[in-house]
Amino acid sequence: MFSLHPSLATKIYVGELSFCTVLMEDVADFVWLFLVPRKENTRNMLDLTHDERMLLMNEIELTESTLTRLFHPDQTNVAMIGNITPQLHVHVICRYKNDAVWPNTVWGHKLPAYTDDKKKEIVELLKKELICQK
Amino acid sequence: MFSLHPSLATKIYVGELSFCTVLMEDVADFVWLFLVPRKENTRNMLDLTHDERMLLMNEIELTESTLTRLFHPDQTNVAMIGNITPQLHVHVICRYKNDAVWPNTVWGHKLPAYTDDKKKEIVELLKKELICQK
Repeated sequence: MFSLHPSLATKIYVGELSFCTVLMEDVADFVWLFLVPRKENTRNMLDLTHDERMLLMNEIELTESTLTRLFHPDQTNVAMIGNITPQLHVHVICRYKNDAVWPNTVWGHKLPAYTDDKKKEIVELLKKELICQK
Repeated sequence: MFSLHPSLATKIYVGELSFCTVLMEDVADFVWLFLVPRKENTRNMLDLTHDERMLLMNEIELTESTLTRLFHPDQTNVAMIGNITPQLHVHVICRYKNDAVWPNTVWGHKLPAYTDDKKKEIVELLKKELICQK
């Protein structure tokens, strides 16, 4: 049965798309989501069938286009790394030319967390615009 | 008309898949490829049509599975970043638990280049097993 890896289970919960659970990193500088396919024993994309890959790409597309519409990033970063957390999760990140680590990648930096009010506001917006749009 | 961005044109040329040009980073520690969709004015995946995204995912799948068969990585990293080079290119990277930067991501490190003989050997293998398989 599918369950989130413990290091993903600590992320901010946003909601469910048809194939993926949507989580958010607690970083206030830019919106940083994770798409986690709800299929057990999935370490990386090689563990998906061809049809599941297409489903995943559909949900990446929906997420990227929704984030772009809501948050107007200068660039979106999309990545499957998985060196540390052995469960497939796709990073979808809004980047800005004036963000704290541009043009570097986001991994390995310590970045400030959301305030409780801001976190609630972003999650509510994403529930409405991303999760309910599926 | 499509042409490679100057910073991608300096990479090692491997060959052509149906939709993407395949390039390689000159880093000897692990095989690090780039898939560059041959569509002009493409900054990121949002500039692809839905059908083009599916084509790209097909070629990511072919590349990941071929690299895994040939080089037996512990993990593959797949990423679209594009903060520095404004032309869509997908990184597909074979990672090992004993590579020089594991478990960190590969960006921002200076890593040793291939010898000429090793570079030629890897490119010939990729031409045979990835490009001619398309």
